[in-house]
Amino acid sequence: MSTISSWQNFQQHYLDLPELGMSIDTSLMVPPDELPQALDKLFRNAFQQMRELEEGSLANPDENRMVGHYWLRNPELAPSAEIKKVICDTLGKILQFAKQIQQKIIQPQQADSFRNVLLLGIGGSALGPQFVQNALASEADQMQFYFLDNTDPDGIDQVMASIGKELNMTLTLVISKSGGTKETRNAMLEVRHVYESSGLDFSKHTVAVTGEGSQLDQLAKNENWLRRFPMRDWVGGRTSVLSAVGLLPAALQGLDIEEILNGAKIMDGLTRRKDVSKNPAAMLAWMWHHAGAGQGEKAMVMLPYKDRLLLFSRYLQQLVMESLGKEKDFAGKTVHQGLTVYGNKGSTDQHAFVQQLREGPADFFVTFIEVLRDRKNASIEVEPGITSGDFLQGFLLGTREALFQNGRSSLTITLEEINPKSLGALIALFERAVGLYATLIGINAYHQPGVEAGKRAAEDVIELSLKIQSHLKSNPAQQFSASSLAEILEESAKISTVFKLLEHLAANGRLQKFSGSDPFSACYQENC
Amino acid sequence: MSTISSWQNFQQHYLDLPELGMSIDTSLMVPPDELPQALDKLFRNAFQQMRELEEGSLANPDENRMVGHYWLRNPELAPSAEIKKVICDTLGKILQFAKQIQQKIIQPQQADSFRNVLLLGIGGSALGPQFVQNALASEADQMQFYFLDNTDPDGIDQVMASIGKELNMTLTLVISKSGGTKETRNAMLEVRHVYESSGLDFSKHTVAVTGEGSQLDQLAKNENWLRRFPMRDWVGGRTSVLSAVGLLPAALQGLDIEEILNGAKIMDGLTRRKDVSKNPAAMLAWMWHHAGAGQGEKAMVMLPYKDRLLLFSRYLQQLVMESLGKEKDFAGKTVHQGLTVYGNKGSTDQHAFVQQLREGPADFFVTFIEVLRDRKNASIEVEPGITSGDFLQGFLLGTREALFQNGRSSLTITLEEINPKSLGALIALFERAVGLYATLIGINAYHQPGVEAGKRAAEDVIELSLKIQSHLKSNPAQQFSASSLAEILEESAKISTVFKLLEHLAANGRLQKFSGSDPFSACYQENC
Repeated sequence: MSTISSWQNFQQHYLDLPELGMSIDTSLMVPPDELPQALDKLFRNAFQQMRELEEGSLANPDENRMVGHYWLRNPELAPSAEIKKVICDTLGKILQFAKQIQQKIIQPQQADSFRNVLLLGIGGSALGPQFVQNALASEADQMQFYFLDNTDPDGIDQVMASIGKELNMTLTLVISKSGGTKETRNAMLEVRHVYESSGLDFSKHTVAVTGEGSQLDQLAKNENWLRRFPMRDWVGGRTSVLSAVGLLPAALQGLDIEEILNGAKIMDGLTRRKDVSKNPAAMLAWMWHHAGAGQGEKAMVMLPYKDRLLLFSRYLQQLVMESLGKEKDFAGKTVHQGLTVYGNKGSTDQHAFVQQLREGPADFFVTFIEVLRDRKNASIEVEPGITSGDFLQGFLLGTREALFQNGRSSLTITLEEINPKSLGALIALFERAVGLYATLIGINAYHQPGVEAGKRAAEDVIELSLKIQSHLKSNPAQQFSASSLAEILEESAKISTVFKLLEHLAANGRLQKFSGSDPFSACYQENC
Repeated sequence: MSTISSWQNFQQHYLDLPELGMSIDTSLMVPPDELPQALDKLFRNAFQQMRELEEGSLANPDENRMVGHYWLRNPELAPSAEIKKVICDTLGKILQFAKQIQQKIIQPQQADSFRNVLLLGIGGSALGPQFVQNALASEADQMQFYFLDNTDPDGIDQVMASIGKELNMTLTLVISKSGGTKETRNAMLEVRHVYESSGLDFSKHTVAVTGEGSQLDQLAKNENWLRRFPMRDWVGGRTSVLSAVGLLPAALQGLDIEEILNGAKIMDGLTRRKDVSKNPAAMLAWMWHHAGAGQGEKAMVMLPYKDRLLLFSRYLQQLVMESLGKEKDFAGKTVHQGLTVYGNKGSTDQHAFVQQLREGPADFFVTFIEVLRDRKNASIEVEPGITSGDFLQGFLLGTREALFQNGRSSLTITLEEINPKSLGALIALFERAVGLYATLIGINAYHQPGVEAGKRAAEDVIELSLKIQSHLKSNPAQQFSASSLAEILEESAKISTVFKLLEHLAANGRLQKFSGSDPFSACYQENC
């Protein structure tokens, strides 16, 4: 590429968003100069669908629900006065509650103030809050945060041990839309047990964020928990970070949640532009389509050159992969769509997998995130005239150049700085990009049918465990091998599952194991 | 698959390693019953190469060095008495130093003991130590750990703020094999500045782990740092976790590093077996080859169902992708090999990207890690007869079943528990699997030529920044646009880089910016 055309090319593919201190440089994606006509037509359709969705159409026909996360930051758009009121009321309640906690008006049972937040949730009820908490953490934070996002007993013990004697100053948030997510339910029961063992009343330390009328909501109501905040059926889990799910913890942290919402609202405005080349979300969707031939052929490697954005790729894994990873398109055709996301942060990942990115299969494109402001205060020089931040930028620019030389494409999102407004904008940008791209490739971004099969299979496993335990208990004097037990239980198709369940029960001292000549001839018996 | 054959299939593809409380189940990878003859031949060659490598051949011809990480856990294997002595002496020095720190024999300048470790390193000098620290963390830990693994000024500020007033009790480890890694050098200068601003002598709080005679080694020697530990040229960065790089922090944490080494040594023994079906590393290498047709066509999704293994995939990204992501094979043929690794932990990821795994492109296989022991103490029941750990296992088994139903393969590594021994074994298992697989596909696992291009390009960027700053300083009264400045500097091919550098300098108050009608016509001037 000649000198002149390289600079022209850069300018042509540089989308400036001064309202947000943000820009997107797609020059190294080597896009065509103009949007192909076929794509233009798809975009017209996508914009139309998006408009209908924003107006309250049933965008998720599977679950017969609206998709309203855009209303959260602009309640004026809500399709009914009732929804508008719910959004505004909830925001008011969140701000008020956070203030009452911070001003010690609401106090814990045996201490003068709440200093910690323990957030229980998984998937959309944890990834967004974790990302925001981490991205905007500062010395000004009002509370220390802990997260339980799994049903790992040892993981729970580790977190509870870190909280230690400060449990009496710990506010627990239980977040589950359905109110029935097993991991969160289990974490809640475990945490409740620790509170109670410490002589503390769980309900006096706990808040529920859940769908109205859910099991969790009922429990919180019956037990008179500190507060209940509603999750609405028109907000999906993976786009719930700007609902009470993300705003409540952010407000407790002391963040300016209205600025987060404002950033998202401004981005929403920009991503409604009909001109693809001026619409940042459409631009991303186009680039994803361009990179992967509309088939997700290339993974999106996320490389934010900023430590506080480390969790962005984990947040995006859910937003992008759960939305776009679909077997069928809207017409029912088998398409096996998806868009793989991975990556941690630069320049750290340069010392991990950039070797493969440069030399290995060209099965990805990179999304670099550059943050112009290095730090709050002035920097020392690490070499004459050069700061640590100059190196950080140098590594970003050097890496994108080195990848480009080897035919690996990338796009770069530049932010003036990470603050509540730009973070809200970043969230809104990818939400809309996912929505538009889903329409381009003709799939439903708002359901997750593939998750159910795993849950059902897990339920079967739990049921089998109960059958095993019950049989051993009823025959306490008898030893069984995995295969004999499976036969007795009429589960011969599942001997290997019986074997694995027995091994797990034995390893935890819940039954006795008698080793055999090989692992499969071991016998198991009820503890005496 | 019929009932009987399913159980037979499970048994046939179940590799039991009772020495380590570990097993590997490859039944759901649907491997052929027998190792194909062509692969058998490749394995004979791989075993032979591995034997030569262990005997001290120059396995990395590019850098004319031996590859000796296996000697670290069995110094008897070292090819010379000198190397053996170095390994034993270093281990002794590490144990002694950790003891002296813990027993307050070595004290900081202005406090009675060291309570924190701040580790500065990147890539192989951070990923291994971070993984081990996290995987084996417990309430018995002797010290609190902090890591700086980047050159992000804001990230550095965040970590230093968390340490806060405890800096006087903080032992800093500077880890860099070459002693010249810029990120680590920058972090060191930044951290030194904070110590000095707090009236503390950096050298009285700091240890170097680096190659003998390196820049860093010289500095530490001249300034009389607390200790210097050697990194040898026969240990590569990404296999350095069981050298001083990982053992020193682990010993300071209070871990039984001899047990970590012992676990690795036992695994090394098992992975020298000539029968592929009995050799766990060869088994993994075969499965990788089988899954991706020897071309890395499928990504390896790592799903450990255990919170403390969260960082395993980040550790493996370097070990696997930097080793296997290569453009050329040994014969110089262009092959673009690689093996992509991503994943976080189960069941958390089930609520993030398992939707795509089940329904999207079948471009991956999963490596599940199951840990049988749930926690130290007994569990409460979350449902009658059922614990949180039962659910964790249920989700693992359910997910692998649901994926298998849709034709997605997986293998499962089961550990009795996570402890120093099993962790050492896990590390050794993947080190050897990578080494064997590299020989199968005919590439050099021990160099990283692709990383250099990015570093060189970054140096060019830094140089350009200096030229820009110097020109603006020499012409303080004058304003320049990006394009005019590039022309003056005779860098017209790099106008966009000049533009990005100017934007970064302006955002950090290092020059003045005067906006124009569009982003490209902005002008910049030396601060007055």
